[in-house]
Amino acid sequence: MGDVTRRLARFIVDSHWSDVAAPVRHEAVRAVVNWLGCALGGCRDETVSIALAALREFAGPPQAALLGRPERLDILNAALINAISSNILDFDDTHLRTVIHPTVPVASALTALAEHKAAGGAEFLHALVLGIETECRIGIALPPEHYARGWHITATCGVFGAAAACGKLLRLDEQQMTWALGIAATQAAGLTEMLGSMAKSYNIGHAARSGLVAALLAARNFTSSEQGIEAPRGFGRVLSERCDFGAIVDGLGASWALTQNAYKPYPCGIVIHPVIDACLQLRNRHRIDPAQIVRVVLRVNPLAIQLTGNSAPRTGLEGKLSLQHSAAAALLLGKVGVEQYGDACVADPRVAALRGKVTASGDAGVGKEQAQVRIDLAGGVHYELFVPHALGSLDNPLSDADLDAKFRVLAHQVLDENGAGRLLGLCHALPTLPDSGAIARESAPSSYREAL
Amino acid sequence: MGDVTRRLARFIVDSHWSDVAAPVRHEAVRAVVNWLGCALGGCRDETVSIALAALREFAGPPQAALLGRPERLDILNAALINAISSNILDFDDTHLRTVIHPTVPVASALTALAEHKAAGGAEFLHALVLGIETECRIGIALPPEHYARGWHITATCGVFGAAAACGKLLRLDEQQMTWALGIAATQAAGLTEMLGSMAKSYNIGHAARSGLVAALLAARNFTSSEQGIEAPRGFGRVLSERCDFGAIVDGLGASWALTQNAYKPYPCGIVIHPVIDACLQLRNRHRIDPAQIVRVVLRVNPLAIQLTGNSAPRTGLEGKLSLQHSAAAALLLGKVGVEQYGDACVADPRVAALRGKVTASGDAGVGKEQAQVRIDLAGGVHYELFVPHALGSLDNPLSDADLDAKFRVLAHQVLDENGAGRLLGLCHALPTLPDSGAIARESAPSSYREAL
Repeated sequence: MGDVTRRLARFIVDSHWSDVAAPVRHEAVRAVVNWLGCALGGCRDETVSIALAALREFAGPPQAALLGRPERLDILNAALINAISSNILDFDDTHLRTVIHPTVPVASALTALAEHKAAGGAEFLHALVLGIETECRIGIALPPEHYARGWHITATCGVFGAAAACGKLLRLDEQQMTWALGIAATQAAGLTEMLGSMAKSYNIGHAARSGLVAALLAARNFTSSEQGIEAPRGFGRVLSERCDFGAIVDGLGASWALTQNAYKPYPCGIVIHPVIDACLQLRNRHRIDPAQIVRVVLRVNPLAIQLTGNSAPRTGLEGKLSLQHSAAAALLLGKVGVEQYGDACVADPRVAALRGKVTASGDAGVGKEQAQVRIDLAGGVHYELFVPHALGSLDNPLSDADLDAKFRVLAHQVLDENGAGRLLGLCHALPTLPDSGAIARESAPSSYREAL
Repeated sequence: MGDVTRRLARFIVDSHWSDVAAPVRHEAVRAVVNWLGCALGGCRDETVSIALAALREFAGPPQAALLGRPERLDILNAALINAISSNILDFDDTHLRTVIHPTVPVASALTALAEHKAAGGAEFLHALVLGIETECRIGIALPPEHYARGWHITATCGVFGAAAACGKLLRLDEQQMTWALGIAATQAAGLTEMLGSMAKSYNIGHAARSGLVAALLAARNFTSSEQGIEAPRGFGRVLSERCDFGAIVDGLGASWALTQNAYKPYPCGIVIHPVIDACLQLRNRHRIDPAQIVRVVLRVNPLAIQLTGNSAPRTGLEGKLSLQHSAAAALLLGKVGVEQYGDACVADPRVAALRGKVTASGDAGVGKEQAQVRIDLAGGVHYELFVPHALGSLDNPLSDADLDAKFRVLAHQVLDENGAGRLLGLCHALPTLPDSGAIARESAPSSYREAL
């Protein structure tokens, strides 16, 4: 298996848009809608503002838009900043098998390059599909220990995705694409230790930027090892104890990772989602008065307890990883969006009081996308619900309308309703859009544009 | 040991130039002379030209000089390009215990920032000393398996050195320096699989640039984990099976890694050096006519055979890792510099013929910096020499005059004798130089400067 990198490169280079089946193409549009919404929701976060303030003085010409913002930067810095914007809310998509958030590193680099090159929408989508395929296949080849050890897999694999997508847009030949993947391999980095700090989203931004650099260097015949992935001292063996190289190249083109991509209805840890579903459904179905709640009993997969069993979160960020906070917010406020994971909501004494009534226990008989919730009310009444497939899971995916609605809520952060609708229209028109750069440009609110 | 990153940060922040002993200060100047010479010798390599051609279109304002070149770029791109220039010849310094080439990643980032900030020479040297101390201590903490597994240690540790040095120049406080080291940790990358390709020097450039980014972000209070080095999912445990965290912080300020730094007299694998010493000495002492040589017998440390036992190199790059080629070039040409590791010299039939007469064998009784060389001439005469300490080893270091001579030869690539002398004077004057940026600016040949 000494030619994994080259075989993967060949597949990317030889792929035609007509090889990609209609459902995969459609999924690519859905991924863009979700990604762009996340970027608009996150683009005013201080993490974005600080990174921009730190790096702007050193940035190049205004080649690419920053999603949702008035500034324009060189494409490399735009790739970095847009990835931070679209990852910061933890609301981006998830390739469930690998836990990679696939669209952010790829689309963030690609959109900057595509705007600069005025690439058409179909070309943009094709490159996106190939980039996501590349990063997810490399992720599938790695054992769970890669992530468990501390590698931030969206970053370590995302750099390959960005390199592949940008390399496709730059029309690299097979040799150049092999080098691009090699230069990506040697930049692979990112520690999960950074979760909970600003550097978490920087990891993804750095991967997006580094992947774009890899493609740009390779386009000029900057050489690397030609076995960057599979060599004894290549990516697969240095960053992991094992690597199933066959999983990277077997059946390329016959299956597509994008069909296994999930979108979050709530901006929090994905194992919490079935609990939120249950709480919202019980609240609405029985018109529950939160003041009457005596006790909330959650029965969930043991992993949910391990990752998100936190009955006393102190910040919005900690709230995103709290089953108890999420259940309380859902029952008290009737919705669970970005606002419910802000510091203010987590500190709200009414939320804290209800949180204190939530108990959670693990049960290996409950699947990761399942939850059993029981609510005891004053006076002895109780309601109970079992959720077999959380909303947003592969068996109960967000519909196109759900995704559009999510987009509109997030876009509201920077755009009025008309602007959001126009931008959504551009996303849906991507397959035939002559210049994909229109999307990034239109994402800046008109008041900004007038100020430019 | 939960505060390694913070203790290291505190040391860097609290250090005063007056704390650094005179021999260490002097060694810092020697390191600069060696590094700058390497950069001038390497700055016209195609690796540099290609990287520059690929990235220039996206670069920022002309804030910093490229060593030996007419272009000026933003400081981040300058850090990258200058590190490639100064590493490409494999002629840079070596911290022998870790095999880190310490000055390139640190000085290349620092010189760009220092020019932009018009930092004084003493401040520049102080930051350089601290950056080198940081990267070498982290390197010492890692077991040999880190490098053996495939991590390019000059890159994985160099990013910390660049962050520490640039953070010192930016006058970060302890909290910010802790974050800078954390952001460095999460960018640590670089595979030895890239050795032999252009991506090898890119690894070091990427580390220099990433370290500078870490310092710039931290200066704006961009947060990271505060235990980026020592946490269970931090650098030390994710990129290595073991890490001796005590080695990073014990005795800080009492010993200095720079005192263990070595400079190469020849631009090739360091284990070859004693053989070259012996061949040059025998040739000069006995006025050997190469045409009379029947046989050359090398007895060396087994590691030298393992790493550099290559009797038929095909390229200049392979020649750098060939005992046989090096011995033949030394005996035939009487000098072993950059030219002798060019493709032309390796392909030269006269060199190849003599190379064929060289045999080498390993002997565990011969130290790594030692060699026994025997030369048999036509007519039965033979000469023999044992080198106990190769020139450039810690027991037989290059003198200041040797380093100046090395600088002049390398600088000749871009500067005339007057220009080289003037630049060397600036290096030696660094401790009192008001603006350290003069060095980078003066490294551009005057014909370039007129053209600007």
